Amino acid sequence: MKEKKAIQDYYSKPMSQCYGCGRLNDAGLKIKSYWDGVESFASFEPKSYHIAFPGFVYGGLIASLIDCHGTGTAAAAAYQAEGREMGTEPELRFVTASIQVNYLKPTPINCILELKGKVKEMKGKKVITEVTLSAENEICAKGEIVAIRIPDNMK
Amino acid sequence: MKEKKAIQDYYSKPMSQCYGCGRLNDAGLKIKSYWDGVESFASFEPKSYHIAFPGFVYGGLIASLIDCHGTGTAAAAAYQAEGREMGTEPELRFVTASIQVNYLKPTPINCILELKGKVKEMKGKKVITEVTLSAENEICAKGEIVAIRIPDNMK
Repeated sequence: MKEKKAIQDYYSKPMSQCYGCGRLNDAGLKIKSYWDGVESFASFEPKSYHIAFPGFVYGGLIASLIDCHGTGTAAAAAYQAEGREMGTEPELRFVTASIQVNYLKPTPINCILELKGKVKEMKGKKVITEVTLSAENEICAKGEIVAIRIPDNMK
Repeated sequence: MKEKKAIQDYYSKPMSQCYGCGRLNDAGLKIKSYWDGVESFASFEPKSYHIAFPGFVYGGLIASLIDCHGTGTAAAAAYQAEGREMGTEPELRFVTASIQVNYLKPTPINCILELKGKVKEMKGKKVITEVTLSAENEICAKGEIVAIRIPDNMK
């Protein structure tokens, strides 16, 4: 299902500095998302210090994962909608206009977090993506991202 | 206006491990919020690597700041509503049930970010807080946190 190359690995160098998902930000989280044409997937192993309370993942990290996975999903879906390969010019790169996260249950930290994303709506430069975050096969958080395509003159 | 001791400095040791605001999490952001009886305030200086794109703050960091500032505001307001001093037992500590952040404009990184919070609604164990994040005197993001008081048996 998964491509070898992550969505974020197609981002151009100037667009690859993000603390959450930039492959060139060595201090960052380097979130990697994969697109199968319908859904997006990502896995993330929290560090021991990414806690809210001992044993449970910090909500700000969860929001960060959902954020970057959501904008990555928007990019992959936008290329697909235009019938183009990811990485081709002009670059389709998205920023977050809004994020909503519902924390359904405490997220245990000593495991791999799994994210799934899909497109809820796509209209013009706006893509709304829905993301779930699971741990140990249980959904712990659900998020929705309104992603906006970055104008060419900002890149 | 500001008290010398931050809201988070009143949290008990087990409740002070948070990556966002725990004074005992040395890898964390150590967000400090102050309460004047009506509003809460926090300042945060992003690190150079906390970027989305060169020059602009990463949205996941903004969500994290709003999250911890919002739950801290909830705690301060809850103590006040009970006519109690912060830090007294039983501890009033809140977790985030949901977060909504609207990113109004790109947030410049080479400056101090200023957060203000206030209570929108308080009912039972739920406190809804509204938080703005400003840079260079302009509001760049607005957030709303639904915070839930942690049951005593979880602490």
